[in-house]
Amino acid sequence: MKRNVLIIGAGGVGQVAAHKCAQHNDTLGDIHIASRTVEKCQAIIDSIHEKRSLKAPGVLQAHALDALDIEAVKSLISSTNAQIVINVGSAFVNMPVLQACIETGAAYIDTAIHEDPAKVCEQPPWYANYEWKRRDACRENGITAILGIGFDPGVVNAYAALACKSYFDRVDSIDIIDVNAGSHGRYFATNFNPEINFREFTGRAWTWQNNAWVANSMFEVHRTDFLPVVGTQTTYLTGHDEIHSLSHHLKVPNIRFWMGFGEHYINVFNVLNNLGLLSEKPVRLDDGQSVVPLQVVKAILPDPASLAPDYTGKTCIGNLVKGEKDGRHREIFIYNICSHEESYAETGSQAISYTAGVPAAAAALLIARGDWDVKTMANVEELPPEPLLELLNDIGLPTRIQEGESDQLLELCAESFAE
Amino acid sequence: MKRNVLIIGAGGVGQVAAHKCAQHNDTLGDIHIASRTVEKCQAIIDSIHEKRSLKAPGVLQAHALDALDIEAVKSLISSTNAQIVINVGSAFVNMPVLQACIETGAAYIDTAIHEDPAKVCEQPPWYANYEWKRRDACRENGITAILGIGFDPGVVNAYAALACKSYFDRVDSIDIIDVNAGSHGRYFATNFNPEINFREFTGRAWTWQNNAWVANSMFEVHRTDFLPVVGTQTTYLTGHDEIHSLSHHLKVPNIRFWMGFGEHYINVFNVLNNLGLLSEKPVRLDDGQSVVPLQVVKAILPDPASLAPDYTGKTCIGNLVKGEKDGRHREIFIYNICSHEESYAETGSQAISYTAGVPAAAAALLIARGDWDVKTMANVEELPPEPLLELLNDIGLPTRIQEGESDQLLELCAESFAE
Repeated sequence: MKRNVLIIGAGGVGQVAAHKCAQHNDTLGDIHIASRTVEKCQAIIDSIHEKRSLKAPGVLQAHALDALDIEAVKSLISSTNAQIVINVGSAFVNMPVLQACIETGAAYIDTAIHEDPAKVCEQPPWYANYEWKRRDACRENGITAILGIGFDPGVVNAYAALACKSYFDRVDSIDIIDVNAGSHGRYFATNFNPEINFREFTGRAWTWQNNAWVANSMFEVHRTDFLPVVGTQTTYLTGHDEIHSLSHHLKVPNIRFWMGFGEHYINVFNVLNNLGLLSEKPVRLDDGQSVVPLQVVKAILPDPASLAPDYTGKTCIGNLVKGEKDGRHREIFIYNICSHEESYAETGSQAISYTAGVPAAAAALLIARGDWDVKTMANVEELPPEPLLELLNDIGLPTRIQEGESDQLLELCAESFAE
Repeated sequence: MKRNVLIIGAGGVGQVAAHKCAQHNDTLGDIHIASRTVEKCQAIIDSIHEKRSLKAPGVLQAHALDALDIEAVKSLISSTNAQIVINVGSAFVNMPVLQACIETGAAYIDTAIHEDPAKVCEQPPWYANYEWKRRDACRENGITAILGIGFDPGVVNAYAALACKSYFDRVDSIDIIDVNAGSHGRYFATNFNPEINFREFTGRAWTWQNNAWVANSMFEVHRTDFLPVVGTQTTYLTGHDEIHSLSHHLKVPNIRFWMGFGEHYINVFNVLNNLGLLSEKPVRLDDGQSVVPLQVVKAILPDPASLAPDYTGKTCIGNLVKGEKDGRHREIFIYNICSHEESYAETGSQAISYTAGVPAAAAALLIARGDWDVKTMANVEELPPEPLLELLNDIGLPTRIQEGESDQLLELCAESFAE
């Protein structure tokens, strides 16, 4: 039974993870939140007290931390006696935090792939560039390291594993579809750090097609689906973390990721990108100043955290899976619907943060309970999906399955656990 | 007979003015070109030699000059013995250059209204804010100062004066229509300094309607016309210099300016403007740097001078005049068509610079010949239009008049001169 959680990162996802951990502190023990800016951690703690999210009286503490400093992370893990680290800081700090866990014996959880700030869109599979190089070290040291357990990557990996295991004899394709049908009411904003957000779209869109990597440019290929609750939506073939592990672990010839964008978002993105304003390379101004255009765009856009109070509408994220079962063609859509308003009422963050932060907290609970304390590094599809999805049904992210005319809550029967 | 010309400013308009002055140096005498960057002046001189534009052997010299420094301008006027100054530098230097002319006795010519860098779109009429305050000083010192003699303002003011004098008993409305139907082949670019260009559109659009100033926002009102050569074009109600003098000098109740924009230009402009990237107010970046967004946009856009070699197509600029003549309703369109390719072949600049620079050189010739050496400050509509339009017919900017089915070159008969 591992106990005591250290959450690294105090953005929207950190806020949700902290609220969820607080709601289960009888199982998780002490909760610590660390960030470069300690005031942001304290604001989360204030919000937890205000919303009375702590289930039982217990430790809830803020810490200042430079997560790039391995020794500092190790020292905080030791001083807090944290046996579980939830890393929801910038994508640039994953490897130092993982290293600190390996050296201290703490379990490691993250929600997005490691990135090198100097590189946009490296060669696939991305996990092989950084994470999987530490797999042996994790196994040798008995370190539980769960990679990419937000919603996507994360829950969608569990959906893929469940489909392969319990719904199909053979899966031909998995199309992960991510639609935010909500509205923030601003002219333009990104839902998380603009720098990380735009980096997803300025490189090539790598997907897995006919058992090989295929590169497209962004907004080159799109599809239109009639989806539950959010209706008709156009989504665009996009490079995304989960393709880089699912293609390795599952025997599925086609794995694609599709992200929804409105025409307005695409227009603004294209104007900025075509003009060179999303570039990370500095330009020289008339007065001699050297400036990175993307940093200026970041400075003039709304702070993503400021959007949550006014966010309305819902997200729909799920896997459209096609294949064969008992000799017949089968298609199912396994998905979740999440409301921005309800997410904000519960945690003070909108649904984009909620869908990423709740699964991370769920992973901490599954490690604490032992279900997922696997003592090695694992992507989510390598782990049993049922305990995660059953837990998420109870704590705010229920799974539904649509097949033909039927659309119902996922019910996890003894049979599927047993296989 | 005034002689010897000092051209201040070595951008595209300066290049055209210098070529045209060189083509008439038998009348104009020595030609001097001054700019903060002397290399730009030298490049223009090299281009003049290369194209053999000098009509007669004569002085052609480059000078480094800070045109904001009145004493430096006076000193250069004296040392070059220039009796005519063509100011085609930044809109921010007009008043210091005019002051230097007043103090040295040189004639003054400019092509655009003075601007204070700290103010966008001041109260109308704009000429009353700076230029007209120096009118008495010009008259008292016998200084010829011709304001705004590019194409628009400039030639269109002469069109308006000619219409009132020779074509109508009563003019009800003058709609100045400016269309650049050319293409530079880039994703997006401005045809002159982006900073000055965008300032035209980020403030209110002041126009003269029913004998009063009316403020619209940019892109709020548009019209569509079938124009000679360039065809069907949509233009937008825009604030512009000439409205601020024509409304004062002519008894015309409606004077409006319409500028043509493609949907793509408007889209890019609106995205940049709505995001705050055209702001002249500094923002603070994550690293503490203070940066003016508009300066970054300027830095990433193509240098306007770099567009000229690839520019294709034509401009159409003219006045749609409506009123009464001999008791009957009359409508005429007085206009010019200018080719980007031909402008570039002759002067190394495109038609936007050509249409502004040729009239400035024509004004210098008219001052040298005495026609326009009026020994006071004047807007173009206060001067006889015929000598200017006759000269422009000969030197590259012919005037045409469209009325009903008729469309012909403007012929200046003795009658119109005599009135």
